[in-house]
Amino acid sequence: MRTVYVNGAYLPEDQASVSIFDRGFLFADSVYEVTAVLDGKLIDFDGHMRRLARSLGELSLAQPADRDELLAIHRRLVELNAVDEGLVYMQVTRGVADRDFPFPKVELKPTLVMFTQKKPLIENPIAKRGQKVALAEDLRWRRGDIKTTQLLYAAWAKTEAKAKGADDVWLVRDGKITEGSSNNAFIVTKDAKIVTRNLSNDILAGITRHAVLKCAAELKLDIVERAFTPEEAKSAAEAFSTSSSAFANPVVEIDGVAIGNGKPGPVTGRLREVYIEEYRKAAI
Amino acid sequence: MRTVYVNGAYLPEDQASVSIFDRGFLFADSVYEVTAVLDGKLIDFDGHMRRLARSLGELSLAQPADRDELLAIHRRLVELNAVDEGLVYMQVTRGVADRDFPFPKVELKPTLVMFTQKKPLIENPIAKRGQKVALAEDLRWRRGDIKTTQLLYAAWAKTEAKAKGADDVWLVRDGKITEGSSNNAFIVTKDAKIVTRNLSNDILAGITRHAVLKCAAELKLDIVERAFTPEEAKSAAEAFSTSSSAFANPVVEIDGVAIGNGKPGPVTGRLREVYIEEYRKAAI
Repeated sequence: MRTVYVNGAYLPEDQASVSIFDRGFLFADSVYEVTAVLDGKLIDFDGHMRRLARSLGELSLAQPADRDELLAIHRRLVELNAVDEGLVYMQVTRGVADRDFPFPKVELKPTLVMFTQKKPLIENPIAKRGQKVALAEDLRWRRGDIKTTQLLYAAWAKTEAKAKGADDVWLVRDGKITEGSSNNAFIVTKDAKIVTRNLSNDILAGITRHAVLKCAAELKLDIVERAFTPEEAKSAAEAFSTSSSAFANPVVEIDGVAIGNGKPGPVTGRLREVYIEEYRKAAI
Repeated sequence: MRTVYVNGAYLPEDQASVSIFDRGFLFADSVYEVTAVLDGKLIDFDGHMRRLARSLGELSLAQPADRDELLAIHRRLVELNAVDEGLVYMQVTRGVADRDFPFPKVELKPTLVMFTQKKPLIENPIAKRGQKVALAEDLRWRRGDIKTTQLLYAAWAKTEAKAKGADDVWLVRDGKITEGSSNNAFIVTKDAKIVTRNLSNDILAGITRHAVLKCAAELKLDIVERAFTPEEAKSAAEAFSTSSSAFANPVVEIDGVAIGNGKPGPVTGRLREVYIEEYRKAAI
């Protein structure tokens, strides 16, 4: 049984709970981060801390603890649960108050929840064979740049994609792909440009998106940040997604259409390799 | 201290909790209903049960208990907490599972949470003086017809409206008013037509919206269900919102512009009166 963290206490997972009056439960008034673990160390922890601070700031949520305290809790959980490879999930909610829509005027004590998940990240079988992706309309709220727990639509769309035999879903708004259910979408065009949607309120500023673009720049690849259509994606040379838990993750099929030769592409493979090598080295 | 209900148990409110792995907490994978209480009885309980069944069905969520069991719990909570006037809140989540986006293939035991709130509903001071409403862009997800707990944006927009001195917010998408933060929006035009947005995926099919339209029909008022603009609302003879907790609730100002003579309108007043009289009589 895992040991998890809730508001200062390390508890067996089956005893870990939050109040029914927690605004995270009643209103999805909460944000989260997921940090990868390789060799028992945290990947790009400070990237996640920066994004957490931004999410909290946008919603006037209180910082639950400073960077060093949060790091200590992450490390303690990794150690207690002997996580060599996997994830640390962290959620911060506005706290507990009787149910009323507006953010309470008095600042509440934020709720802080963390737990680990063991998972093979390097030897990920889906990354080996490549993902099949279905397309669905993006019906989510219009502030996808804030990493909130309003995740029902992403969960629903992924469920429907899986029912159709796909591994994941890419979402489409106004004829352009926004992003995946919990990852950013990339294509490699036939003239070898790496294309991914530009940052805006429509998509999450992925920590791994940023890191993979850095790797691409180091490899002297051409990068274009702009929206692209499903048709463009289907006729691309390669496609992949990025996320903290799956790194650069090849896509070999979009809505039943094979991408390139239907196998994980070489540019994707190289980016995955370089990312893992560099960020593993820098893990803390 | 209130007694609340969680998964079969009646508990003091400070001991009522859900697992941190509850999908309602992690993904806002949950729906809710709020039923008004007058004279210790439930208003339009079966309307709420029908809508709950629809929300659950849309999301392939399991019914947590049948109508009679849910009624018995509502009544027990009203009695234990001596609620003469107020609300019963009920939330149903998909249940508890390790964190993973897709709906689990094995049906989970749904989580069922209920609690009461005492509140003066008839002698509501805001209904007496009339609400000031601010306008904001509707950034919510596109399935507002399902009553989920993805309520962060509604809470945020209401918070900002209150900071501007308003009581609530009406949301605007593509130049037309969708609805309020947790209520449906109505206007009465200068030629005495009751106008409210037609049902679609964009708005919640309010139980009180339906009931007030029924009352309007009984009063032989003209009803038009169509979208309307902020400009039309500002130049209307009257405006009001409907919700289970505030019934027909007059609006006297929209974005700083007085509606009619700036006082609660007579048509709104009459609808409020008739609604309360009829639905109070039919309460169970």
